[in-house]
Amino acid sequence: MDYLALYILPEMSDIGLDHQSIRRFGPVLITLDASLDKPLYAQIRDQIRDRISSGALKIGERLEPSRELAKRLGVHRTTVSNAYADLEADGLIQGTVGRGTFVSPLAADLRRPSAPARRAHQDVFWQSFLAQEQRDDSLGRLMASALEPGVISFATAHGPDDLTPVDLVRRATDAVLRRDGAKLLQYGSSDGYAPLKAYLQSRARRDGIPLEADELLITNGCQQALDLIRHSLVEAGDVVVCENPTYTGLWNIFDSSDVRLIAAPVTPDGLDLDFLAAVLEQNKVKLILTSPTFHNPTGVTMPLAARKRLLELAARHQVPIVEDDIYGALRYRGRELPPLKALDTAGLVIYLNSFSKVGFSGLRVGWVAASRRVIERLRWAKQRADIHTNMLGQAVLEDLGRHGVLDKFIRRIRKEYAAKLETAERAVAQYFPPQARVTQPEGGMALWVELPAALDAGALLAKAQDRGVIFAPARYFYFHNPRHNAFRLCFSAVPNAQIESGVRILGELLHEEIGRLSRGKSAARADAGVALV
Amino acid sequence: MDYLALYILPEMSDIGLDHQSIRRFGPVLITLDASLDKPLYAQIRDQIRDRISSGALKIGERLEPSRELAKRLGVHRTTVSNAYADLEADGLIQGTVGRGTFVSPLAADLRRPSAPARRAHQDVFWQSFLAQEQRDDSLGRLMASALEPGVISFATAHGPDDLTPVDLVRRATDAVLRRDGAKLLQYGSSDGYAPLKAYLQSRARRDGIPLEADELLITNGCQQALDLIRHSLVEAGDVVVCENPTYTGLWNIFDSSDVRLIAAPVTPDGLDLDFLAAVLEQNKVKLILTSPTFHNPTGVTMPLAARKRLLELAARHQVPIVEDDIYGALRYRGRELPPLKALDTAGLVIYLNSFSKVGFSGLRVGWVAASRRVIERLRWAKQRADIHTNMLGQAVLEDLGRHGVLDKFIRRIRKEYAAKLETAERAVAQYFPPQARVTQPEGGMALWVELPAALDAGALLAKAQDRGVIFAPARYFYFHNPRHNAFRLCFSAVPNAQIESGVRILGELLHEEIGRLSRGKSAARADAGVALV
Repeated sequence: MDYLALYILPEMSDIGLDHQSIRRFGPVLITLDASLDKPLYAQIRDQIRDRISSGALKIGERLEPSRELAKRLGVHRTTVSNAYADLEADGLIQGTVGRGTFVSPLAADLRRPSAPARRAHQDVFWQSFLAQEQRDDSLGRLMASALEPGVISFATAHGPDDLTPVDLVRRATDAVLRRDGAKLLQYGSSDGYAPLKAYLQSRARRDGIPLEADELLITNGCQQALDLIRHSLVEAGDVVVCENPTYTGLWNIFDSSDVRLIAAPVTPDGLDLDFLAAVLEQNKVKLILTSPTFHNPTGVTMPLAARKRLLELAARHQVPIVEDDIYGALRYRGRELPPLKALDTAGLVIYLNSFSKVGFSGLRVGWVAASRRVIERLRWAKQRADIHTNMLGQAVLEDLGRHGVLDKFIRRIRKEYAAKLETAERAVAQYFPPQARVTQPEGGMALWVELPAALDAGALLAKAQDRGVIFAPARYFYFHNPRHNAFRLCFSAVPNAQIESGVRILGELLHEEIGRLSRGKSAARADAGVALV
Repeated sequence: MDYLALYILPEMSDIGLDHQSIRRFGPVLITLDASLDKPLYAQIRDQIRDRISSGALKIGERLEPSRELAKRLGVHRTTVSNAYADLEADGLIQGTVGRGTFVSPLAADLRRPSAPARRAHQDVFWQSFLAQEQRDDSLGRLMASALEPGVISFATAHGPDDLTPVDLVRRATDAVLRRDGAKLLQYGSSDGYAPLKAYLQSRARRDGIPLEADELLITNGCQQALDLIRHSLVEAGDVVVCENPTYTGLWNIFDSSDVRLIAAPVTPDGLDLDFLAAVLEQNKVKLILTSPTFHNPTGVTMPLAARKRLLELAARHQVPIVEDDIYGALRYRGRELPPLKALDTAGLVIYLNSFSKVGFSGLRVGWVAASRRVIERLRWAKQRADIHTNMLGQAVLEDLGRHGVLDKFIRRIRKEYAAKLETAERAVAQYFPPQARVTQPEGGMALWVELPAALDAGALLAKAQDRGVIFAPARYFYFHNPRHNAFRLCFSAVPNAQIESGVRILGELLHEEIGRLSRGKSAARADAGVALV
């Protein structure tokens, strides 16, 4: 056991630390037993960890300097340093130059049970497949069942088939292939098709975002933009703050063992800025990820004053903000708000958008607007990722944009979706029991439904599915501490007539379930298991 | 300096190691000086490193066990362990359980000068931009200049504009949008458009590769397949064997500080299998990357016997092979050879191909065929990367494929490219000096030209560019120990008339340069600088 030998230094035996030595460590006791197989540094580490998780050592509390603790425990300083290093790597403590070592505010957030399991299988190639994480593919199955005939699906966030702009795309494709066909079938530029970039620049200018060409990168939708950001701007051990809940495809990227992903609560005004301020105060944060307009899945929108405060916080700590504005164009009521990027005087906002939620998901075209330095990095990553985005989709969208067809189409679907939202809200008011609290979003594609604490949306889904209706349980949107008594109800893809019947079926089911709850409260609670308020 | 304190242990002063102590270490001397600022472990490490690079310690030579060396040097064992750990992290030595520690065969390959620079800037976000690697964008500039009017470009590997199948794509796009338009504009499946997968299965079966649907994944060309493999199959510290030279976009992905990328020489029969056998014998290799048919940039093809031996080696060591077959369809002469995947009985080959070299680069559609377990992993990575490949490109290629149009078109361009190859070879025979050795590939898009050792293809390019002709100097294709006296001459994109005039201009330049060489040999050698044989 060479590894252990590194830590159990010979002087241990020399200083009379025989079988058990108990000393006071700040407010707690550290018990060292040299006769154990477990190295001394690990004994120290694990006992401090236990004190933190029990609350005996509180967040923000200062730890004894390693030199002093080593002296008091009668061990070599290396032993304490090793214990501290492990605790720091786990995000439980953190050092600040010139101030000391403190219990980290991440201590409450970072002990995700899956992390060690993930790290465990870095061994033989084939073994790593066998030992592979048991990934949760129930979301994939849910999305697949949305395609089954006869199913009313409130599960996924996209437009209805009958509103896809097939004829517009068909005519535009024909036009661009006639005009620029040879070029569109050849390799293109990694930063994007120049005419599309020019069109997006003019569009951004209109929205109050003046952009140079080298501040813009075309991607395969926002998903790729997030993946490029992950791979080119975030390094091992970096701290990233992310809304919890959030879009599943976002946390799937950032929730890995080598990123310290901090779960920021989402309030009715969006990302919790008091929480964020505290995190920024105490951590070197690499990125803040947020979707301030029609947040997925909750639909909440950050008010103007909060947007300004968020930008001030980011500027003070010089932390870039990734702003996902994918739903921004889908406002049906309330006052238009500027995206963070339009308010960004410090050049810290990395702005993402795409054509995926306005009728063109299958073309896979989106874009990033950010400082030249960020775009330069992302462009290299894009080149490594797939050389460039498909040319045909880019050219079609440029053609539709330049001729004003795109804006006209977006106005049309905004009207259609607004009507769907109204239909959904009327049906909810009529059929849902009062115990189900439903948001009133000003835009986006979904309602967010909060249930009594004892109801589990996953169990509800199974029953709803039997009746031909599906939705997305809240838990898919949480990377930490999942909420079970809520779900997302996407109205955008559902034909109007089905919205009402679907909501009626769900309402009946909710009445039954809540009735059952009040009839046998204790039994229902036992069923609900891990339900959280 | 806490960091150093970890290593200069107190017992140092106790054992009479005063200012300088010289002891024999195997065949070499280790000199320790406790008065230096440099910690003892670093002194040991650096001296062993020097002995390895000077050849005093040879590859495969056994190092003294750390316990014994520590005793002989009179230092704590931790000190030697730390030195060994650093040397191992740098790939200079390696331990084999039960056998000891040896100088690694990687010692010759892994000391890439850029690696420490890369690791250095993991600090502040914005600083990391400023400190960013000085990336070599001369290749980007070269590719851009290929688009300038009047330039004869042998630089890039694609088809000519006048052969792009614009009308075929236009008709197919119209047909698929009429047939399946709503579906093509919606989100699709991460593993690919089902009809295209079915078509590729039938095509693979024809090529002797029976495939199930879950052994196939659609990607945005081979580039994305390589990136997905990098991110989902390769972990920090893994050893990957790669041909050197190889496709620039491949080594850009794998040549990172956390991968041990071993440069395998390319022989006239492809990947050097004797070298590979030795590497596999002595390392736990995670992946072998190879392009056995019309290798880019050299154009060499691995004979059947070598293919079988490669598969045997991989099977014996249970190491997967990534086979890039992107040029496989472009054979103009010689006998058709089965891809590795068709000979693969052990299920170890991860086969990559795309439609990018047969006229459809801009659509960004490629595929991976591999075992179910590999595809499952890549599919998750694909979902994180960009959800799915653009639907329009997939549907167009399926439509062209199913109607036989694709095969007919590939036959046509094969004929056209064969004629271009003949033209290029005739011109080379007529205009190039005999000192320029040119390959005779059986397919692909390029000739590979080897120059006298004293000529630098980069310097030659600058002069050729002044005369309106460009090509790709060899160095872009090497991630290690770049060769300077060679270049790739792509004929596929150049109109026939320009092939001859371009080769004539290059031939004149080569005659001049070689004439200058023989007139003033020593002066020319000084010019050539780092030229290697």
